[in-house]
Amino acid sequence: MKAQQFNITAEILESFKNIVGKDQFFVDDESLTQYAHDETETLSFKPHVVLKPGSAGEISEILKICNEFHIPVTPRGAGTGLSGGALPHLGGVVISTEKLNKILDIDERNLQVTTEPGVITEVLQSTVAEKGLFYPPDPASKGSCFIGGNISENSGGPRAVKYGVVKDYVLNLEVVLPTGEIIWTGANVLKNATGYNITQLIVGSEGTLGIVTKIVLRLIPLPKYDLLILAPFASLEKACEAVSAIFRAGYTPSALELMEIDALKIVSNMVDSHSVPVNDDIEAHLLIEVDGNDTEVLFKEMEQIAAVLEQYEAGELLFAEDAQQKEELWKLRRKVAEYVKMVGYTIEEDAVVPRAELPRLIKGLKALGRQYAFDVVAYGHAGDGNLHIRIKKESVADSYQNPEMDKIIRELFLLVKDLGGTISGEHGIGLIQKGFMDIVFEERQLQIMRDIKKVFDPHGILNRGKIFD
Amino acid sequence: MKAQQFNITAEILESFKNIVGKDQFFVDDESLTQYAHDETETLSFKPHVVLKPGSAGEISEILKICNEFHIPVTPRGAGTGLSGGALPHLGGVVISTEKLNKILDIDERNLQVTTEPGVITEVLQSTVAEKGLFYPPDPASKGSCFIGGNISENSGGPRAVKYGVVKDYVLNLEVVLPTGEIIWTGANVLKNATGYNITQLIVGSEGTLGIVTKIVLRLIPLPKYDLLILAPFASLEKACEAVSAIFRAGYTPSALELMEIDALKIVSNMVDSHSVPVNDDIEAHLLIEVDGNDTEVLFKEMEQIAAVLEQYEAGELLFAEDAQQKEELWKLRRKVAEYVKMVGYTIEEDAVVPRAELPRLIKGLKALGRQYAFDVVAYGHAGDGNLHIRIKKESVADSYQNPEMDKIIRELFLLVKDLGGTISGEHGIGLIQKGFMDIVFEERQLQIMRDIKKVFDPHGILNRGKIFD
Repeated sequence: MKAQQFNITAEILESFKNIVGKDQFFVDDESLTQYAHDETETLSFKPHVVLKPGSAGEISEILKICNEFHIPVTPRGAGTGLSGGALPHLGGVVISTEKLNKILDIDERNLQVTTEPGVITEVLQSTVAEKGLFYPPDPASKGSCFIGGNISENSGGPRAVKYGVVKDYVLNLEVVLPTGEIIWTGANVLKNATGYNITQLIVGSEGTLGIVTKIVLRLIPLPKYDLLILAPFASLEKACEAVSAIFRAGYTPSALELMEIDALKIVSNMVDSHSVPVNDDIEAHLLIEVDGNDTEVLFKEMEQIAAVLEQYEAGELLFAEDAQQKEELWKLRRKVAEYVKMVGYTIEEDAVVPRAELPRLIKGLKALGRQYAFDVVAYGHAGDGNLHIRIKKESVADSYQNPEMDKIIRELFLLVKDLGGTISGEHGIGLIQKGFMDIVFEERQLQIMRDIKKVFDPHGILNRGKIFD
Repeated sequence: MKAQQFNITAEILESFKNIVGKDQFFVDDESLTQYAHDETETLSFKPHVVLKPGSAGEISEILKICNEFHIPVTPRGAGTGLSGGALPHLGGVVISTEKLNKILDIDERNLQVTTEPGVITEVLQSTVAEKGLFYPPDPASKGSCFIGGNISENSGGPRAVKYGVVKDYVLNLEVVLPTGEIIWTGANVLKNATGYNITQLIVGSEGTLGIVTKIVLRLIPLPKYDLLILAPFASLEKACEAVSAIFRAGYTPSALELMEIDALKIVSNMVDSHSVPVNDDIEAHLLIEVDGNDTEVLFKEMEQIAAVLEQYEAGELLFAEDAQQKEELWKLRRKVAEYVKMVGYTIEEDAVVPRAELPRLIKGLKALGRQYAFDVVAYGHAGDGNLHIRIKKESVADSYQNPEMDKIIRELFLLVKDLGGTISGEHGIGLIQKGFMDIVFEERQLQIMRDIKKVFDPHGILNRGKIFD
C-alpha cells in the first residue's frame, strides 16, 4: 500500500466539526503538535486535524466521510505507545478516544466489566478491585495508558507471566469498521466456538481493522495477598538461567522481572532511591512476586523459589517488608523505560524468545553492542522471555529510516528469530518495526494479513502503513 | 457459497494414490461408509475417496490438485465432533489426519510441546504429565478425540473453567493452506504482538481455512493434588444459582459441572454404578473439583465452597475418597453424551450464556420442552455457563433440515441470545448449526467471515458449507 493523494477540503472539515462539535475539533498548531507524537523514540508527524468524538455513532460518521474521500485516519488512545502505532505519519485525521472514558458496567454476577476505550488502565483496575475483582494485564504505563490502546497492542505487563496478556481477558468488542458500520465481534461469554474469532483478530491489530468503542473483559477474583523479593545476581546470564529454572521447578510467580544493573542505576538515581544495592559486583536483579489467598502458602512458595535462586548464585535477597517498600521496588521497575529514554536510550526493541533462550539472547545482544559500538540496557518480562532492549548510540536518536540502526536491529532480530522468537512481545509493530516483518514472516503470511486488512478496510484509510506497507 | 460441480476423474484418483501410496488410499464402500459420519446426530454422507496422508507435503500436493479442479475437501480428525464439521456432505475427498500421530518434541526447558494433529488428546496429556507438565483442555471425548480436532473446534472441557480452552494454549501452528502453501502462523513464544493473530484465527475455524499439520502448545506445571465432591440439589435452579455464587465468593474450582438427574439416571444404569444417589427428590448434581499443590489449602477451599453450597440448599455432599472413586464420578460425567444419545436423545445443542444466567436458561428450556412436547436433559460446564442440551423427540432423530426441529432450536437460541449468550461454546457450528448463525450475527459480521474465508480459500474447496453457506 502506497500513500494516497488526499485532500481535506474546507467542506469536509466543516462536516467533521458538525459531527463532534466545535469544542472537540482541533486544527490549531499547538494541538496538532501535541498529537504529532507518542512515546516512540523522537518521532513526530503532524496531522491535519484532531477530532475527539464522544460516541461510536460520531466515529462512524467521521469514518464514512474519510472512507469516501480516502483520507488517512490514525486512531489514538493515550499516546503511550512505543512502536509508533498512534503516529499520523501520513497526516490526515487523528481520532482520539479520550472522550470515551466511562466504565459502563461492572457485572459482579458474571465477573465482567464493560468499558469504553479511553479509560486509563489503572483506573479500570482499581475500580474493579473495589468490588474484589481483578483485571491482571498491567503495562508499565498503566497509570497513563488507555485500555483501548492495550487492546490494540495486545499489551502484557509483569503479571502476564501468571495471568496472561490482554487477549486472554477480552470477551467481546464493539468496533466501528473503516467503512462506518458498527459491529460487535462476539458475545459476553467465557467460551465461544461460534464462527471465526473476530474478537481475537481485532485484539493486537493496532487500530488497522477498526476503532474499538466498547470492550467487555472477563475478570477474576482478586488475590488477597502477595509477596515481593528482589534478587541480585553477579552474572546477568545466571539471572536469566534462574528464570526458567523457577518454572521448571513447578512455580509460576505472578511477576518475574529482570533489570540490568545499568538500567537500575539510572532509575535509582532519578527517583532518589537507596534501598536497592547497585554495587559493582552486581550485573542484574530479578524482581519476583507471588500472589494468592493464603500467606502461609505464599511464604512457603517464596522460600522454595529462593532455594532455586541460590543454585544460580543469587546474592542476598531483599524482601519487601510492607506496601510502601513494594511500591518502591515496583516504581523502580516501572520507571525504567521513561528514565533510560531521558538519558539517551531512545531506541527500544521488544524482543521475545522462548524463556530458556534468554541467556543466549543477552549474550548475543552484548556482542552486538561491542561490534557496533552502542550502549544497551535490557530489562523486562523475563518470565515470558520478553525483553525490552534500549539502545543508545551517539548521533542516532531514532531508528525510523536510519540505515545504520536498521542494520543493527536487523542483526538483533535475526538472532531473535534464530532463537525461536519474534520481534514484538507486547509493543506491536506499528510504524518503526514494519521493515523487519520479513525476518519472521514469509511473503505468503504477509499477503494473508494484507488481504485481511482489505476485507475490513477496502480503501486502506485506517492506520495505513502500520504493521506492513 | 453454493455447491459446485466437480468431477473426480480416474486420472485425479491416480494422482491421489501416487501421493499417499496405495495403502492410504480408500474408495471401497466400507471405508467410505466409515468416514461418512462423525458423532453428530444420525447424519451420514459418503465421500468419493478417503486419503490418509503422512506429511504436510502430501496434504499440500492433494490440496493443490483439489484447488485446481475445485474438488471439495473435508479434513477429519478422530470423527468425534458433534456439529458435523467432519461430515463430507458434498462428497469429494476426505483427508484424515490419523497417520500424523506423533508427539514431535516435549520442550521441558520452555514448557512447550510440539505435536502432530492426529494424536489422541488423552495420550498427549498423559505423555506430558510423565514430565510433570499439564495440558489442561480435556473434552469429554479425550480418550478418542484428536488434538487437531480440538484445535479446529476450540474445544474446552471441564477444566476450562479454571484453565481456559484450547485457544489459551496454542502458541503456533503449521498449516497447509487450501491453495497448497505451508505456513507457520506465529512463533513459539508466550507473548506475541507481531502482526495479526493468524494463530487465533485458525483455532476454532473448523477446518475451513487450512489443515493444521503441526501444533505448538504451551504447558504449565502439573498441579500435585485435587479434591472432588458431588453435591445433590433438590432444585435444578438452585444448583445453577450456586454455580455463580461460588465464583462471587472468590473461588475458582478446576471443574464445576452440572448433571441433571435424568441424565445421571441413564448413565448410572448403563455403567452399573450405585454410589451416587438418584432419589426422586433430587433434580441435579454439581461435580466440583479443586486442584493445587497444597492439600491443606485444598481442604480449606473445599470446605468454604461447601459452605456456599449449603446456602443454596445442597443435600449431603459425596466426597470422593480415592482415585478410584474420583474416576467413577468422572466416568459418570464423561459418559453422559454417549449414553443419553443411545437412548434416543440424539439432538445436541451447545449453548453458552453468562454464567449467572444459567437458571433462566434452564427455566426457559423446560418451558420449551413442555410447549413443543420433547424430552430434554441438560448437563455440562456450568462454571463456564456452557450447557449441553440433549433433545429427544419421537420421529425426529436429527435436526438437519428438519423444519419442526429447526423451529424449536431457533426458539431456544433466541432465548440464549436474549440472555447475552451464543449458540456454541465448544462444539462449533459445522453443518448443523449454520442455519442459526443469523440469530447471533448480523449480515455484516457474516460477510467479514465469508471474505476471510475467501482470503484463504479462493475456490472454496476446504470444508465448504460449514459454519456458513
